[in-house]
Amino acid sequence: MQIVFLGTSASIPTPKRALSAIAVKRSNELLLFDCGEGTQRQMIQAKVGFHKLTKVFITHLHGDHVLGLPGLLQTMSLMGRTKKIEVYGPVGIKKFVEAIDETVPHSGTFEVQVFEKQSGTVCEEKEYTVKATQSIHLDPSLVYAFIEKPRPGRFNTKKAQQLGVPQGPLWSKLQNGISVTLPDGTVVDPQTVLGKPRKGRKIVYTGDAGYSEQIVKLAKNADVLIHESTFENAMTERAIEDGHSTPSIAARTAYEAGVKLLILTHISARYNDAALLLEQAKQDFANTEVAQDFLKVEIEPPED
Amino acid sequence: MQIVFLGTSASIPTPKRALSAIAVKRSNELLLFDCGEGTQRQMIQAKVGFHKLTKVFITHLHGDHVLGLPGLLQTMSLMGRTKKIEVYGPVGIKKFVEAIDETVPHSGTFEVQVFEKQSGTVCEEKEYTVKATQSIHLDPSLVYAFIEKPRPGRFNTKKAQQLGVPQGPLWSKLQNGISVTLPDGTVVDPQTVLGKPRKGRKIVYTGDAGYSEQIVKLAKNADVLIHESTFENAMTERAIEDGHSTPSIAARTAYEAGVKLLILTHISARYNDAALLLEQAKQDFANTEVAQDFLKVEIEPPED
Repeated sequence: MQIVFLGTSASIPTPKRALSAIAVKRSNELLLFDCGEGTQRQMIQAKVGFHKLTKVFITHLHGDHVLGLPGLLQTMSLMGRTKKIEVYGPVGIKKFVEAIDETVPHSGTFEVQVFEKQSGTVCEEKEYTVKATQSIHLDPSLVYAFIEKPRPGRFNTKKAQQLGVPQGPLWSKLQNGISVTLPDGTVVDPQTVLGKPRKGRKIVYTGDAGYSEQIVKLAKNADVLIHESTFENAMTERAIEDGHSTPSIAARTAYEAGVKLLILTHISARYNDAALLLEQAKQDFANTEVAQDFLKVEIEPPED
Repeated sequence: MQIVFLGTSASIPTPKRALSAIAVKRSNELLLFDCGEGTQRQMIQAKVGFHKLTKVFITHLHGDHVLGLPGLLQTMSLMGRTKKIEVYGPVGIKKFVEAIDETVPHSGTFEVQVFEKQSGTVCEEKEYTVKATQSIHLDPSLVYAFIEKPRPGRFNTKKAQQLGVPQGPLWSKLQNGISVTLPDGTVVDPQTVLGKPRKGRKIVYTGDAGYSEQIVKLAKNADVLIHESTFENAMTERAIEDGHSTPSIAARTAYEAGVKLLILTHISARYNDAALLLEQAKQDFANTEVAQDFLKVEIEPPED
């Protein structure tokens, strides 16, 4: 699983930082979190490709988080995409997508399913769940958690052989948690040949957000917490006023949630160099990084 | 007067080419022709600045020509702009701007005046006129001509002295074409001290367009014709079908209009290198260039 930062600037782009967008690559799927103006070009530059994209999660309807969505959808139509796309976001996202369809003429070649969500389960797939909670921001805004479901435990080949299960389709069934019946009538339960289920990975992305206990709760034990850090600590008052965060707020959330890694993003254009923000966060939470455009972060499966 | 190419790709951006946008710098003013997604960031990278921007001319409502407008307007609000902006475009531009205002929450700090135009005079200023004609394209689309008005002729200081006009405010009046009365009652007519009016400059930008006599007429004697050239000559059939142009079509228009310089833009993403397009156009019109992002072209005032 890989996180690719496509845009890491707050509100206004800079020569180095595009507007908010994060891609998550997992198996044969690409998920996008936020889609600020310019995301399609950042995707082309990062070579993440469009065809594996299945879902876009928009945190909120501020321009720097959503104005790249129409262009991305239209470009995929120009490329002849036929596979549907799911777009998730807070209330208002449907009206936005419809408004563009009505005012910017283009031929859609695929279905765009738009879902308006609040707190709770956003989508439930075979291998993962996406959950959300409302953040404290100026307008309705969601914090997303991508949560992999536990994977089946390791398959004990020796044990399977001892029990007389022939290698082949029966092994696959057991690996997928399904009981099998041997030619002699013996029923083999998958529990007997599988180790204990292995924990999935968890990534949490705040979008724009001030501090809240709901975020701490959602981010509990995450492998990676991607937290906005628009302003430095000296601007805490302004941050709170605007529903934004500082390095200290991000670090506090990371600490209280017990995450493994904190990555700061949504850096105000006033910072030519985000070293100050990184330094301030590290004072409260050592395992912190600051994102830059095209940063790639690998999330390895947890050890057993 | 300087033309700055901000985006030169057709339909889909590439790592090298952003979507359509052209800035024209003149005196203390910046004009923008088209505003594809990513234009605000290209403006930042090209260091053309936002504060001198007074007018945006949109050729048509296809995404690659207009989806950068909302972000640009919102960024200028975030920067606290107070000076109004005028947006010109074909029918539908008003509904688009309103739809964004209604669905993407932001605080506008300045007035956005939107004008829907067809063929004819688009706007008339003291020193220039912008005219338009409809192009042959899939949806209503405008070709724009920026036409400087003639400037007053050169001021003959010797003659003014001979006529007894004292240097100072009276000279300024004469230079601006206003008669002055000397202390002894003599009236001096500006014609007597000014050379013949000097021709203004003319830039024509096609947006997306196939060949038409209307464009030739609008581009007559232009200093620069910025003509789309989406496809190579071998794809003429496809170009005509889609309401686009090839190098030969662009060169034909340039030749028939008798322009000084032809610049090709709106290059399909299929061309990694636009040399082929340039070569094909040069066969029919020698003084041709092909645009690339951040190309700057100076237009000197015509010689007397």
